[in-house]
Amino acid sequence: MSSFVSSPPSEKMPKTTAPPGSVEDDQSQTQTPLPPPPGYGVTGVLRRWRHEDMLKRGSLGLRALGFLFSLLAFIIMASNKHGRGRNFDEYEEYRYALAIAILSTLYTGLQSWRQIHELSTGRRIISGLNLALIDFFGDQIIAYLLISAASSAVPMTNRIREGADNIFTDASAACISMEFFAFFILSLSAMLSGYNLVKQTYI
Amino acid sequence: MSSFVSSPPSEKMPKTTAPPGSVEDDQSQTQTPLPPPPGYGVTGVLRRWRHEDMLKRGSLGLRALGFLFSLLAFIIMASNKHGRGRNFDEYEEYRYALAIAILSTLYTGLQSWRQIHELSTGRRIISGLNLALIDFFGDQIIAYLLISAASSAVPMTNRIREGADNIFTDASAACISMEFFAFFILSLSAMLSGYNLVKQTYI
Repeated sequence: MSSFVSSPPSEKMPKTTAPPGSVEDDQSQTQTPLPPPPGYGVTGVLRRWRHEDMLKRGSLGLRALGFLFSLLAFIIMASNKHGRGRNFDEYEEYRYALAIAILSTLYTGLQSWRQIHELSTGRRIISGLNLALIDFFGDQIIAYLLISAASSAVPMTNRIREGADNIFTDASAACISMEFFAFFILSLSAMLSGYNLVKQTYI
Repeated sequence: MSSFVSSPPSEKMPKTTAPPGSVEDDQSQTQTPLPPPPGYGVTGVLRRWRHEDMLKRGSLGLRALGFLFSLLAFIIMASNKHGRGRNFDEYEEYRYALAIAILSTLYTGLQSWRQIHELSTGRRIISGLNLALIDFFGDQIIAYLLISAASSAVPMTNRIREGADNIFTDASAACISMEFFAFFILSLSAMLSGYNLVKQTYI
């Protein structure tokens, strides 16, 4: 009985002061057969925070670039009126390109504004899974619309250019290029948002 | 000294025969402050296997459907020759649509073949992260190409249809619709592959 009473302190001693690789490590190995995934523990949490901060800044940068290109496409196409047969609104391709440029400008502008607001105040307007869903589907749909609009305007521009090469066709080509750039940027942004979405649903 | 020698057996007894919720559970709680994420332990692994199996079958089903629609688009456009001014190869939009239909048929066909092969034999031709990367980027790029090809062919078809509505424009419209269907299918497939990719890089 005396051995049972006196043994706990002498047994607990190695548990608190044991070097790594001793009794305690063996116990934790038998209790959890799989190692814990990265991102747990203090250093893991810190690393994850830094990683998330980088992701947020990257996403904001991409959307701001997308906003710039969309705005350029919008301005270039909206001002593309140079007399009869040289107005953008006589061709359905160019009207479509303008409509998508406006939509993309609005979307990327609003998202950039929201992200800048979040970074400066630290408060979130929408949070959690809803935001991740809106981010991913928004980016992906706008990317699809942009490539669709740019592709649909290419053949007509080619065909007009075979006859004459003037300021009307140049402006159309510039608008198409801007939409292609905006598409590349938004497809990257959609990948980032998709990564965020899966991460949120998984952890 | 005698207490130190006799204590280990009496101390180890509760460790092997302890019911759940006793000393051992308290120890594991202090060692791992966060609960283990879902997907660990026997039931978790089983659930994950079933989930992965469902994902694989879903992915195969989507790609097989995509193959069907791409093949239809390819056949319809390739046979779309009805005399002067009504041949698909006089219009660059239709040549582009045909090229992308062929590309998509090849990609979805090869992927479906690979997946059926894997499901029937259980062996993998390519494995791990490389496969997930090929899956995701392949699906995503083919989806972008399909919407691009379909969109570019729409305005010309509209314009010809304003003048005359014949078998040439009908076949073109059918090909465009098939490419749109294939695009929807492949965009879904790209989402599944993206989910798989992030899951693989995270676990």
